[in-house]
This record gives sequence, structure tokens and C-alpha cells, in this order.
Amino acid sequence: MSNSINPIVWQEDCVLLVDQTLLPLAYKVVEIKTYQAMAEAIRTMIVRGAPAIGVSAAYGLYLGAKEIQTTDRTIFLEKLEAIAATLRQTRPTAVNLFWAIDRVMATVQGATGNIPELQNLILNTAKAIHNEDLATCQAIGDQGLAVLPETPEKLTILTHCNAGGLATAGYGTALGVIRSAWRENRLGMVYADETRPRLQGSKLTTWECVQEGIPVTQICDNMAAHCMQQGRIDAVVVGADRITANGDAANKIGTYSLAIVAKAHNVPFFVAAPLSTVDFSLSDGKQIPIEERDPKEVYQIGDTRICPEGVQFYNPAFDVTPAHLITAIITEKGAVAPDQLIHLKG
Amino acid sequence: MSNSINPIVWQEDCVLLVDQTLLPLAYKVVEIKTYQAMAEAIRTMIVRGAPAIGVSAAYGLYLGAKEIQTTDRTIFLEKLEAIAATLRQTRPTAVNLFWAIDRVMATVQGATGNIPELQNLILNTAKAIHNEDLATCQAIGDQGLAVLPETPEKLTILTHCNAGGLATAGYGTALGVIRSAWRENRLGMVYADETRPRLQGSKLTTWECVQEGIPVTQICDNMAAHCMQQGRIDAVVVGADRITANGDAANKIGTYSLAIVAKAHNVPFFVAAPLSTVDFSLSDGKQIPIEERDPKEVYQIGDTRICPEGVQFYNPAFDVTPAHLITAIITEKGAVAPDQLIHLKG
Repeated sequence: MSNSINPIVWQEDCVLLVDQTLLPLAYKVVEIKTYQAMAEAIRTMIVRGAPAIGVSAAYGLYLGAKEIQTTDRTIFLEKLEAIAATLRQTRPTAVNLFWAIDRVMATVQGATGNIPELQNLILNTAKAIHNEDLATCQAIGDQGLAVLPETPEKLTILTHCNAGGLATAGYGTALGVIRSAWRENRLGMVYADETRPRLQGSKLTTWECVQEGIPVTQICDNMAAHCMQQGRIDAVVVGADRITANGDAANKIGTYSLAIVAKAHNVPFFVAAPLSTVDFSLSDGKQIPIEERDPKEVYQIGDTRICPEGVQFYNPAFDVTPAHLITAIITEKGAVAPDQLIHLKG
Repeated sequence: MSNSINPIVWQEDCVLLVDQTLLPLAYKVVEIKTYQAMAEAIRTMIVRGAPAIGVSAAYGLYLGAKEIQTTDRTIFLEKLEAIAATLRQTRPTAVNLFWAIDRVMATVQGATGNIPELQNLILNTAKAIHNEDLATCQAIGDQGLAVLPETPEKLTILTHCNAGGLATAGYGTALGVIRSAWRENRLGMVYADETRPRLQGSKLTTWECVQEGIPVTQICDNMAAHCMQQGRIDAVVVGADRITANGDAANKIGTYSLAIVAKAHNVPFFVAAPLSTVDFSLSDGKQIPIEERDPKEVYQIGDTRICPEGVQFYNPAFDVTPAHLITAIITEKGAVAPDQLIHLKG
């Protein structure tokens, strides 16, 4: 299956990240050699997308762990926990970050062996998370095929933000479903919301589609309802940063609005995400912490401030779509109604 | 009543327009001396907003009429009709453009007198349209007070695009309601949608609010639903470019989306517009021509292209909000449910 997008590459003793703040104007690979650099890359969104920051954080733990100078297991674990704490503080909403860190920590804590062996175990766990994520995305893509509308033959699918290869180990979640539909000749056109304020739709989703020859039409976020009113959209597929046990889904700001307008037009609304995005410890979406980012993202475009001094700003990076607006959640183990998600708990 | 915003000023033999493509970075007044220059100013949105382009087109007719070199009434009217045709072709959606031109033409056609007298009549009609629009906006603002929610005492009102002083002869329609609420101590905060692609909310609405000390918070368009979910918004007030006999309203792209999400949160949704915006000749909104503008507005910000080559675009400038999503239409003669609009027909 297609995997032309490799946002994260492990190479000897460092991680290569495609700098997603520069695409599509420049394709630049950044070498990340320390856990501090990885934390900064996650915080500044050089790497972004819930699964991708999970993979990156796992490698970040290794980059920190390999520099710990001790032969004492207790000291090693204490220092590793401090590194984990730094990585956990980068971004609050996507649960995959915490899931990946917790998985590495649990693996190390449960293992015996000397420090070099533990360090090696961390690297292997990070590599496993990385490899599994790619396979998971391909499975999500294929599971999505089962729930996409049967007509028309060539679907027009709207997506928001970038839940693509760039947001994962490759292939993508929402764009994974779109890639699988394209492969199976079920796709006519992708509509990409530009996704203000950071324009991940315009910059990243369109770029991924163009790379693979998938037809894509860019619109502003506020045009989606009008497109649905005109009958242009057959389905919406988006990713998620955290899904709670009841099926509520936090995703990039604007997703909630899109879910409401999809419902108003009877357009099916799908959330595609790995089970590692499901936080079964939270009963509903009200408990998900929503990151607020620098207001400069809203009032400044490039180097230009677009509004006058004296204005206030609000810049929530995510919103929560309640389960009742979601037609199905597409996971690697199958696509289910939100209230059935609990049965997929591993 | 406050009228610090004067986007259109008649001065001896030319029209002074505030160049709205430059605000808020620069405040520049452009002298418009010919009807061709006025047509270009409307087309390029140096002047924009349905009532403001109506006023501008009326002055544009005079700028053309005063240059017609004939003493023959028939020839004069033929040449005037050609000028009117040029002005009519500038923008298709806002009906005020056609309304103002038709009013001037009907006045001239119904009048006797020599050519200088007819030319003078055109100028006086344009001035009347200009003056009436200001009074109309002030009346709309005050009529709006009657339908705004009674609680909380200090309302938070969300608006989209700029239906302000800049979009009219002054005072504004949606911002007229907001100005009247501010004057009556009923306003706590304005939320301004940035309004992609041209950012009239970020650039113009925030600027107007700051000029008058009205507290304003800028958000991206896709954040409105999230703000409503959090209970931040008490009412939505927007303008309109054309309202049909059944109460459907065309307004800046994104208005329809906003109306759907307002309904989903039981937030009242008001359309504020002069009766000159109502096109009683159209039975419903499906008949309103929707302008599509240059895709560059979507894919280019400043001098930077934000998405790669090979992408398609869709850039509708307006959308149609069906009457059933509108709580009331606020006109200078009163605020009515959309299905009662027909009773205000003059």
C-alpha cells in the first residue's frame, strides 16, 4: 500500500522530521538529536498530528534515555521520568502523546536488565510504536471502506485539518480512509478545509493529495455548509486527537462546526483514529483539556498583523464533537457507532 | 447618534471613498472622478457592503451623467442606461446596487427638464439615497434593541464579515444594532468572525469597534460553534446582501454555517438590513445569483501562495441562509419574523 509520506524517520542516533511548519513552500528535514529538541519540535508543530507526536515522543524518550549517565536502575528511572515529564508538557490535548510515553515507561519499568539493555528496549519500543502506527493507519483506511456511502460510485469526501501521512507514521487516519477509497476507485474528489488559523488543510492536506495525484479542491472553512447545501459533499472524514469512552471526539478547531452542518444536511460524519487515540479513562468530552495557543496565530499571517491594536483574541486549538453527531468511529479494529466504542477496549 | 465612520463622502465634483482593501494597516481616501473608476472601485472592493455599493453606484451614475455631451433627452437617457449597465455588471449578489441604480433611473425617466436639470436631479437623488441610508441604519440599530435577548444585561454578540459603518453610509446594519446596544449599555463584548477569505471581520469590524471603544474579540470562523458550546455567545447579528420575499437571506460566505450552528445551540440569529436589501421579485433564495470570486483570494495571503500547484479551488463569495434559521429580520420599519417580511413591502 502507498506510503510516500514519511514524516518521521529513525536514523542511527537521531530522528529526522519533515518540518511541517514550512510545507508546502519548502520540504526541509530537521535532525532531532536531543529530547529537548524533540519537545520543542512537538510544541512548535514541526511535527504535529496525534499519532505522529506519539511516535515522536517515544523516540524523544530514547534520545533522552541514551544520555543518562548512571549504572543505577533507580536513578535511571527517575531521570527517565523527568524526561517524560518534559515531553508530556508539550501539548495537552492529543492523548497519543501520553499513551506512547506511558507505554514506553511501562515497558521499561516491567523489564529487567542493565542500563544499556533498558536503553535499547526504549529504542525498540519506539520503533514498534512507529511501525505499528503505519500498519494501524493502513487498517483504518481499509476499515473505512466498509462504512463509506455506497453511492455515488465516486465519492466527494470533505476533510478538515490534516489527518494524513504527515500526522501519523504514514498513510494517515482520515486521509488513510481517503487513500484506500482512491485505491479502490471509490474517490472522485477531496474537499480540503483550509483549517484556520494554521492552515494545515491548505498547506498539508492539499500537498499530500497532490503528491499522489488525488484530486483536491481547497475551500475556506466557512464554505463547507454551502458546499453541502449544494449537494457537493457525500461524506466527511476527520481525524481525532482524543476520543472519550462515550465516543465524544476532540479534534482540530472547526471539526465541531463541521459535524453540526453535516448533520443538518444528512451528510455522514466519520472520525478515523487508532484505538490509541481513545482515552477510556475519561467518560465524556467535557473532561478533555483544550489547548489554547498563541493569539498571534489568529491575528498575524506571515509577517503581517491583520487586525488593529486594541482587539482581544481567543485561539482554542481544538473543539469537542459530541458522539451523537458522529456516524461512526473508524478504528483499526473496525468502524463502530460511538456508543459501541467501549467494546473495542483492548 | 454616533457616526464616526464615513466611508463615502460627496465633495464638489467627486466621491471620496475610504479604501477598504487597505484597512486597518492604512487609512487612505481615494478620489473617484469617473463612473468607470467607480465601477472598478466596487468590483475591487475598495468600497463594499450592500448599502455602501448602492450609494456609490448612485454617485457613479451622476459622475457618468455629468459628462454626457448632448442636449437631446433621448440620447442622454440612452447614454445614461449604458453607464448604468456598466455599474450593474460590477457585482451580482447585493441587490442594493440594482435598487439604487433603478431608483435613479426611474426618477430621471419620470422627470421633465433640460439636461443640466436632469444631471442635477441625479446628483440630488444620489445624495438622498446617501442621507436616507444613514438614517435607515440608525433606525435599524434602534429597532434591533427590541428583539435582542433580555438577559444577560450585557450581551455578547457575534457578527460575521463587516456590516458596519464601512458597509453603509455610516453606523451600519448589524454593527448598527451593536452600536445601539452599546449606547444603551446592553453590550458586553462583540465576537468578530475573521471572515475568510478576505478577512473583513478581522480587518474592518475590529477596526470599527476599536475606533469607538467597543470591546471586541476576534476569532476564526471555525471557532464560532465552539464558543457557542461554551455558552459565550448570546446572539448573532449579521447583515445581508439580498433577502428574498420568503425571508431567505444571502450574505457573506460563512453566514449559513453560522446560522446552522446558532440554531443547534438555541442562540438567536438576526439579520439586520434595510428594506432596500429585500428583493420582493424573488420568491426564495435559490434564485439569488451567487458571485464567485478569484481563487487567489483563497490560496494566496499577502504575496504568499499557501498551497501547492495542482490544487483546485472554489470561492463562492456569498451563501444563502434559509428563512427557518433566522429568528428575526431587523429593518428600519421594525424587526419581524422572516415570513412576515412581506407585510413591510412598501
